[in-house]
Amino acid sequence: MSLERLSLNSATTKRWSLAEVVEGAVKAGLPAVGLWRDIVADAGLENAARTVREAGLRVSTLCRGGFLTASDDAGIAAAREDNRRAVEEAAALGAPALVVVVGGLPAGDRDLAGARERVAERIAELVPVALEHGVRLALEPLHPMYVADRAVLSTLGQALDLAAPHPVEAVGVVVDTFHVFWDPQVHEQIARAGREGRTASYQVCDFNLPIAADALLSRGVMGDGVVDFASLTRSVAAAGWTGDVEVEIFNQEVWDADGHEVLAAVSERYQQLVLPHLG
Amino acid sequence: MSLERLSLNSATTKRWSLAEVVEGAVKAGLPAVGLWRDIVADAGLENAARTVREAGLRVSTLCRGGFLTASDDAGIAAAREDNRRAVEEAAALGAPALVVVVGGLPAGDRDLAGARERVAERIAELVPVALEHGVRLALEPLHPMYVADRAVLSTLGQALDLAAPHPVEAVGVVVDTFHVFWDPQVHEQIARAGREGRTASYQVCDFNLPIAADALLSRGVMGDGVVDFASLTRSVAAAGWTGDVEVEIFNQEVWDADGHEVLAAVSERYQQLVLPHLG
Repeated sequence: MSLERLSLNSATTKRWSLAEVVEGAVKAGLPAVGLWRDIVADAGLENAARTVREAGLRVSTLCRGGFLTASDDAGIAAAREDNRRAVEEAAALGAPALVVVVGGLPAGDRDLAGARERVAERIAELVPVALEHGVRLALEPLHPMYVADRAVLSTLGQALDLAAPHPVEAVGVVVDTFHVFWDPQVHEQIARAGREGRTASYQVCDFNLPIAADALLSRGVMGDGVVDFASLTRSVAAAGWTGDVEVEIFNQEVWDADGHEVLAAVSERYQQLVLPHLG
Repeated sequence: MSLERLSLNSATTKRWSLAEVVEGAVKAGLPAVGLWRDIVADAGLENAARTVREAGLRVSTLCRGGFLTASDDAGIAAAREDNRRAVEEAAALGAPALVVVVGGLPAGDRDLAGARERVAERIAELVPVALEHGVRLALEPLHPMYVADRAVLSTLGQALDLAAPHPVEAVGVVVDTFHVFWDPQVHEQIARAGREGRTASYQVCDFNLPIAADALLSRGVMGDGVVDFASLTRSVAAAGWTGDVEVEIFNQEVWDADGHEVLAAVSERYQQLVLPHLG
């Protein structure tokens, strides 16, 4: 089965409900889905878990927890509570990993070092919750263009340093091609993630140029942008990754297209550009 | 004189000719300008050099050389020739440094490692030219959002590694706040640049959010964006930088405004946000 490791992240088919994501994945022959919390909430957690289970699908990740950089007591408490709930939801869905986007700078704040310290504190607090529920916190470095508004965590090396104090079963890292392809250290840090047992998710998606007017939406179908999937996938495979390969695309054109056609295109590009290098 | 280290980069007042840049800088009490090659060419090289000299201004940098990633013989030869000319122009203008933006990926190419190797080869070829003319090649790491189309050089650490094989008087690095503020290693790499004698230019400019529809134009007047000028300037000063502080802003609103007003605003923000931390 050539699609046996391909997972559809629900953000790729943004207009689909959970039931439609599950149905679409099954119809396209995919064994797994990555789910965003909004469509899980819309479907109801128990119902969502049952729908996925009865369809025979794996849940590769739940997206997402995080936004841990608040510096005020109320914001810190809210982030703790929200992330505790996200871990519980991941457990209920049978997702091995909760993707964690750590958050940017609070409004008016320019202190990246301080924000990074608060992230480390919040992660340490969440580790017991993660262990209790058997869910891994998958720290996702985001492209540096999002450092101020979405993630003060920008490189795999930084994510691995952040994970290092904690048990490997509690904290891992996400390798998302869009976010890390530019990094001159990416191949050595992918190898390090494997060596240290930290790889928790491999997400593939292209980096389109020119950057979209809404910079969040510059993610593209593999082959449409500038990412070299061959070398990155070879490094991820060489580092021992045998898990799912999740496709997560934020892109207005992709969102406007028919979901089944998107899934067909994604499956084809996966087989052309990614699968041959998975080893 | 509180503006005694402030330099106006001509890109900030994009509509001004060389004569207007010089006149504007003198009128605003600035001792230095950074010049782009286009306005130098429009004025004529000898005339430009004389105009700046007679106004009593320093030329902090010439912008720019680079675009060294071509993989075809004609492209390689053209880059060699253009950069040789740029070094000669910098020498004629009395600019100590030629800013080098190394270039992105050739069309259709996705091999960042290969492009980086070609950059290293081209720099090595230019070193004798730089030494001969007493001009330093100032390697500028650009924000990773430009890795594919403008600069496969993304971090100060990478720039310092690229400079390392060459004499310090031939190759240095640019610290541009917009491009490097996000880097978790920025403070240690600024310190390293000082220690290794490689700092060749300090450029200040903010990172505005949201990112402009044309991502090149997200540079902002200091204080308008998310950059912490205090900590970066303190690190640059602690690393021994005693040279000019150049303000280079690509921003449509700034370009549409009156140049004298822009220069007044830039001077004010410099005195508020940068100067107190220069030591």
